[in-house]
Amino acid sequence: MREVGWPAAIPVVDRNSVVPIYQQIYEDLRESILAGTLPEATRLPPERVLAERLGVNRSTVVQAYRALVSEGLIEQRVGSGSRVAQSIGQPERAADVPWWITLPPWQVGAFPQVLGELAATFHGERVSFVAGVPPVEPSPLAELARAFARVAGDPDYVLSYGDSEGHAPLREAIAARMRARACDIDARDVLVLTGSTQGITLVAQSLAEPGDEIIVEQPTYPGALQIFAIAQLRAIPVSVDDGGIRVDHVEEILRTRRPRFIYTMPSLHNPTGVMMNADRRERLVTLAARARVPIIEDDPYGVLAKSPAPPLVAFAPQSVIYLSTFSKTIAPSLRLGWLTAPRAIYERLLLRKQSYDMATSLYVQAGVCDYLAHDYDEHVVRLGEELAARHALARTTIARAWPRTMRLSAGEGGFYLWITAPRDLRARALLDAAERNGATFLFGEAFYATSGGDHNLRLAITPVTHEQLVLGIERIGAAIEELSGR
Amino acid sequence: MREVGWPAAIPVVDRNSVVPIYQQIYEDLRESILAGTLPEATRLPPERVLAERLGVNRSTVVQAYRALVSEGLIEQRVGSGSRVAQSIGQPERAADVPWWITLPPWQVGAFPQVLGELAATFHGERVSFVAGVPPVEPSPLAELARAFARVAGDPDYVLSYGDSEGHAPLREAIAARMRARACDIDARDVLVLTGSTQGITLVAQSLAEPGDEIIVEQPTYPGALQIFAIAQLRAIPVSVDDGGIRVDHVEEILRTRRPRFIYTMPSLHNPTGVMMNADRRERLVTLAARARVPIIEDDPYGVLAKSPAPPLVAFAPQSVIYLSTFSKTIAPSLRLGWLTAPRAIYERLLLRKQSYDMATSLYVQAGVCDYLAHDYDEHVVRLGEELAARHALARTTIARAWPRTMRLSAGEGGFYLWITAPRDLRARALLDAAERNGATFLFGEAFYATSGGDHNLRLAITPVTHEQLVLGIERIGAAIEELSGR
Repeated sequence: MREVGWPAAIPVVDRNSVVPIYQQIYEDLRESILAGTLPEATRLPPERVLAERLGVNRSTVVQAYRALVSEGLIEQRVGSGSRVAQSIGQPERAADVPWWITLPPWQVGAFPQVLGELAATFHGERVSFVAGVPPVEPSPLAELARAFARVAGDPDYVLSYGDSEGHAPLREAIAARMRARACDIDARDVLVLTGSTQGITLVAQSLAEPGDEIIVEQPTYPGALQIFAIAQLRAIPVSVDDGGIRVDHVEEILRTRRPRFIYTMPSLHNPTGVMMNADRRERLVTLAARARVPIIEDDPYGVLAKSPAPPLVAFAPQSVIYLSTFSKTIAPSLRLGWLTAPRAIYERLLLRKQSYDMATSLYVQAGVCDYLAHDYDEHVVRLGEELAARHALARTTIARAWPRTMRLSAGEGGFYLWITAPRDLRARALLDAAERNGATFLFGEAFYATSGGDHNLRLAITPVTHEQLVLGIERIGAAIEELSGR
Repeated sequence: MREVGWPAAIPVVDRNSVVPIYQQIYEDLRESILAGTLPEATRLPPERVLAERLGVNRSTVVQAYRALVSEGLIEQRVGSGSRVAQSIGQPERAADVPWWITLPPWQVGAFPQVLGELAATFHGERVSFVAGVPPVEPSPLAELARAFARVAGDPDYVLSYGDSEGHAPLREAIAARMRARACDIDARDVLVLTGSTQGITLVAQSLAEPGDEIIVEQPTYPGALQIFAIAQLRAIPVSVDDGGIRVDHVEEILRTRRPRFIYTMPSLHNPTGVMMNADRRERLVTLAARARVPIIEDDPYGVLAKSPAPPLVAFAPQSVIYLSTFSKTIAPSLRLGWLTAPRAIYERLLLRKQSYDMATSLYVQAGVCDYLAHDYDEHVVRLGEELAARHALARTTIARAWPRTMRLSAGEGGFYLWITAPRDLRARALLDAAERNGATFLFGEAFYATSGGDHNLRLAITPVTHEQLVLGIERIGAAIEELSGR
């Protein structure tokens, strides 16, 4: 039983929940107010007091109260603190209470807007190492524009929706390229998507239920973590070392737990750039097949690797749902990717994909299909060479401009550098200093399902010119020096 | 308690569930087999016997058994019927049992693939009145191709993801056109989507939970019904007459029930073509605001109406989530639409939208934004005139070639004709006869949340030429005559 008066307003919080603490406070109070357990004009505990009682930061309570104020559920006045609003129970003012306060509570919460931040374009003076976009050179634009011009006049491509499975010639072109990478894939196994992010949501919603556990890499793609949070899945993190995901840890987990799936990026892993080694690839698919846990293989970068490895789906087509995209190899604004899945699961995924957008743009599919027939394969080779050149340049510059205490991951290529700073240097502090010096990057927390990453930084080396690459690294180097000098 | 032997395999079915009966049978048996309640080699009841016991069609049982066979859970042999497969419990064969049989049961089911069917392009000899695509003339293609050519060379449009809210100039262009229709909408209220179908899923997943009730029109857009079924929402149907949705019925329902939202298409309603009258528009938004139930206004066709009416969102911006698309006014293959929502709900929708595809294609957005500045408004006028001409031609032809017993809805325009056949003429039978004569259309069941529509047909008058329009209607007329003559 709760106490009388404002002590009744002390919410119960669960630190193991996927729901952020501030949201739990917010939801608990909101429910009590709407249910009348906390009547009008009831004084709420001061923010500082509640924070102490719950053992949380004051800012967490401030955030929860602010959400209640914005919905008109509580009122705050300087000097008299926070009270339950007067209007809630008065029928004549009921119409002022907006409909959205009656929404199912779990959907009310705010999730970290990581996908939006990753998508946003940065402008300004700073050298920005944030966006995972392809470099401007080598440019696919001229050939791509020609390809689109060839299909833009055809009403069959522009004035119809097309099959929701995807444009048949594009599915064939994709399957052929996967077969060239040792995957036993037929065109009918391919489901065209608006990008691999769509595939992650499709899988999160189709293969698991709220509260289910899944295995993720640590660190991993923050967009996937946002999606798993929205789907209310509980991520069990498994660390990534220079050989890829720690398969021995996966084995340990599978002994006692039944995760719904294993989400992994085995080739040019984001953010570390690591290639999972051949031995682990085999062991992981064997383990997963034995435990009957499917693998979600996210492979946006694999074709750009210097020493390519066969995707996991090549080892075990029935145990793997494979995701990839043209966002990194052609252009992100196309919003074009695909998945392959075992037949038994394909139609379930297709039905949900239809609910997201009926079908992927046929105009875009037809244009890219035309581009694939003309310039794509050569472009991928050129792009791989450009990435190798950028990596060499970045590593040389770092060796020259940064202290040795900054450790680079063993990753052999791709779009990113993943750096671990020494214990006395927090990545957020370094970011502040670097931004003052005119360079910006992502710090590591967003890549961690649990706590961690506070000494890590990710540099995307693609959205800048070669000159900016050198300049930006030097600016970060100056920032490191400033912080070390203090 | 269940009986011993195969009578133990008689599943319990719930006729009021949103889950199809065949799926309930399938899931019940699957669970019993996996749990060991039905041990290996147990004989299952013959299909005919089980169908009689449950009072369902034999085909329903056949479908359930087939799903079990395809997963290796049961075996069927001619002469000895269906048995639980031998392999299930044997550890040495456990690896043969695929991982997907352990999926959460409710996600296993098949939903009607309506969205896929609506999206698919029909080819062949028949005059097809199926697809809701714009006519080939007036064609937006030449101007659209020019618009895309103007943006295709710009890396800012092609090599970036763009803001997940949408391309700022496009949001402004959309808001300006909505303001011209009396809606108090700012660019920041606009969320760009891949089509209004995406908006329906966004709303179904963000504003309701499985099992919640919603109000839908009857008949209504079948794609919306598929989405609500996937989200496991319970649709309360309210009939549409010549003045739009029966608002008096809505009022009745709101007296005793708390639906999560009201899904309505007030202008050029699909499939009837009806315009909701001004009185009902006002009453509906007033009612909804008082009951604190939001309205989801789906408006793909409104700007094409001969006598346009202000959208519902013009009456009550805080009570309405408005959805629209360029699929009907420019081209469906663009996959470009938008929603507007009250600020308090906007970010929740944005976060989930990000999980579907990060952002809508910036290349497509930039191209359409350019097209809007050049040719769009004139194109919409020309398209409206073309639709009016087609309606006149279709109605004249029907008056000449069909018996009077076929009733057209009072709908005043748009893409569709909605026809009610007399009691002795079932739409499915008519479709069979019409297809033999070389014409095809959609029959009405898919437009009904509950039973009904078996005497209705929907003709899309847009995917054909004027000559085919006349020819197709004549062919259906001949089919009606054949069936009446028998």
